[in-house]
Amino acid sequence: MLYLTAVFLPFLILIILGPGLIRGLEYLNFGQQIRGEGPSSHQKKKGIPTMGGILIVFALLISSFIFLDLGTEVIWALITTLGMGLIGFLDDIIKIRSKRSLGLRAREKLVGQILVGLLLGIYVVFYSGMGKSILIPFTGWVINPGYWLIPFIVFIVVGFTNAVNLTDGLDGLAAGVTFIVCTALAVLCSALGYKELALYALIVSGACLGFIWFNSHPAQVFMGDVGSLALGGAVSALAVLSGTEFFLVIIGGIYVAEALSVMIQVSYFKISGGKRIFRMTPLHHHYELAGLEEAKIVSRFWISSIILAILGLLSFFIIS
Amino acid sequence: MLYLTAVFLPFLILIILGPGLIRGLEYLNFGQQIRGEGPSSHQKKKGIPTMGGILIVFALLISSFIFLDLGTEVIWALITTLGMGLIGFLDDIIKIRSKRSLGLRAREKLVGQILVGLLLGIYVVFYSGMGKSILIPFTGWVINPGYWLIPFIVFIVVGFTNAVNLTDGLDGLAAGVTFIVCTALAVLCSALGYKELALYALIVSGACLGFIWFNSHPAQVFMGDVGSLALGGAVSALAVLSGTEFFLVIIGGIYVAEALSVMIQVSYFKISGGKRIFRMTPLHHHYELAGLEEAKIVSRFWISSIILAILGLLSFFIIS
Repeated sequence: MLYLTAVFLPFLILIILGPGLIRGLEYLNFGQQIRGEGPSSHQKKKGIPTMGGILIVFALLISSFIFLDLGTEVIWALITTLGMGLIGFLDDIIKIRSKRSLGLRAREKLVGQILVGLLLGIYVVFYSGMGKSILIPFTGWVINPGYWLIPFIVFIVVGFTNAVNLTDGLDGLAAGVTFIVCTALAVLCSALGYKELALYALIVSGACLGFIWFNSHPAQVFMGDVGSLALGGAVSALAVLSGTEFFLVIIGGIYVAEALSVMIQVSYFKISGGKRIFRMTPLHHHYELAGLEEAKIVSRFWISSIILAILGLLSFFIIS
Repeated sequence: MLYLTAVFLPFLILIILGPGLIRGLEYLNFGQQIRGEGPSSHQKKKGIPTMGGILIVFALLISSFIFLDLGTEVIWALITTLGMGLIGFLDDIIKIRSKRSLGLRAREKLVGQILVGLLLGIYVVFYSGMGKSILIPFTGWVINPGYWLIPFIVFIVVGFTNAVNLTDGLDGLAAGVTFIVCTALAVLCSALGYKELALYALIVSGACLGFIWFNSHPAQVFMGDVGSLALGGAVSALAVLSGTEFFLVIIGGIYVAEALSVMIQVSYFKISGGKRIFRMTPLHHHYELAGLEEAKIVSRFWISSIILAILGLLSFFIIS
C-alpha cells in the first residue's frame, strides 16, 4: 500500500510542475549545448532546455521527507543522491555560462564523485548497521570485505554514477532504464527486509516515470548532469546500503554495457593505434550510426533492461 | 522463480523467430492495408507486414504447454485466447485476400466473439470452481450474480476484445499496454492464490515484450487482428476466471478510454447531427491530429498504463 503510494507523489510532482519548469528553463536559456563530436543528427536537439533533473531532485527530496524515516540509514541514499546532484548541477551551470559543451574539468568532477563515494563508504564501514556484507547472485554466498569495503564502495558509486551519466544520451533512455532498475531494486530491498530503502527506490522510480512524460522521444527537456549524476548516486547508494552491488551489475546491465563500450573503445583505440570496435560510443550511438532510429534503440534498451531486471531478480529468488 | 522464468520462454520465442516471421510475412505479401479514413500520415505504413500476432499466439501455446497445468481452469484462458485469435486470423486473411482494409463483416466478427464469450460464461457458471463471484475494487465487496454472470462475462469478453483491437493503432501501443496490464494481472492473480492464472498472465507479458522488440516505433511488423483479438481474449479471460473484472476496468483503463472515445464520438455525432468531440477516434488518433508525434503518444499511453496498473493494484491491496 505505502509502497504503491510512494510512486505517486514524485510522479505527480513531475507531471504538475514539469510544464512550468520547461518554460522556466527555456526562459533562462538553459538550452543544451550539443557536444561537437556526437552524431550529426543530434544537432537538431539544440535549443531543447536541459537541467530538468533539478525537478527530479526536488521531487526526491520532498517525497523522502514525507515517506521516509530519515533517522535510519536511508538518509545516506538521499545524501549520496544530493551530493552527486550538486556536482552535476555545478557542471551544468558552468557548461551553460561558458556556452561550451563541457563543464567542470573531468578531474574536478571525478574528485567530487570520489569524495561522495568515500563518505558513503566510511559511513557504511564505521557507522552503519547495513551494507557491511555483500550478497553474491545465484550462489547465496556472502562476502565481508572489512576495510576493503571502502574502496569497493567508492568504485561502485563512482562507476555507476558515471555509467548512468553515459547512458543519458538518447530521449528517455536514462530515465526509462532507471525506472526499471529502481523498481527491481525496490523488490530486492523489500525482500531483504529493507523497507525504507525499498520506499526510496520506488520514489526514484516515480520521479523517473514522471520525467519520461516530457523526456520521451521527441524530448521537450533533458535531465542534464544534475539529473543523471543524482540518479546514478541514488541507484548506487541503494545497492551499497542493501549489499546488492553485484545484483546491480546484472539489473543495471545497460549502464554497465554503456560504460564498458566506452572503456573498450578507448583502450582498443590506444592499443591498436587508431582502430575502433564500435562505430561510436557510448553504445547507443553505435546503433544510431548503424541506422536504427532513436525511438527504436530506446525501446530496445528498455526491453533489454526489463529482461536484465528479471534476470537479476531470478538470481536472487533462486537462492532465497 | 517459476514466475520469472515463465516470462522468458515466450519472450525468447518471439525474439528468435521474429526476424524469420517478418521475412516470411513480407514474402507472402501480407502487407497491411491501411484504412482509407485513418490519419494521412499512416499511409507510409503501407507495405509493413501484418499478422505478426500469429507468432504471439504460437508462443502462448508452446509456453502454456510447458508451464501450465492444463487440467485446471487455466485452459479456458487459453481457449478464449485461441478462439478470439482464430476470429482475428480469419478477418486478417480475408482482408489480405480481398486487398481491402476490412475483413469479416462487423456482424460476423461480433457473432463469433459473442460465441467465444458465451462458451466461457457457461463454463464458469456451470463447470468451474473459479470466477463465480466478482470482487469490487476499494471495498472488498463480493458479488455473486448467479446466472446473470453469463451475460456479464459475454459483455466483458466481447468488450475488452474489441477494446484491445481498437488500441492496436500505433506502433507498440497495444503490445506495450498489454504487457503492463498482464504483469499487473499476474500480481493480482498471484495474490488471490490463482497460481496457474498468474503464470499464464506472465506468459502473455513475455510474448508482448518480445513482440515490442520488432513492433516499437518505427514498426517492422504489426500484430493484426489475430494478435489484438487473441490478446483481448487472454486479458478478459484472465479477469473473468479470477473474478477481477472490475480491476481490469482500472488496470486496462487505456483499453476502456480507447473504446469509450469511439462510442462517445459516434453517439455525439448522431445526436448532434454531425458534430465531433474528438478530432478522430480511437483516442490515440485524436492526439496524433493534435500534433503529437507517434512515439510520444505511445510512451505517454504506456506511462498512463503503468499508473493505472498501480492504481488497480492499490485498489486491491487497500482491502487485503
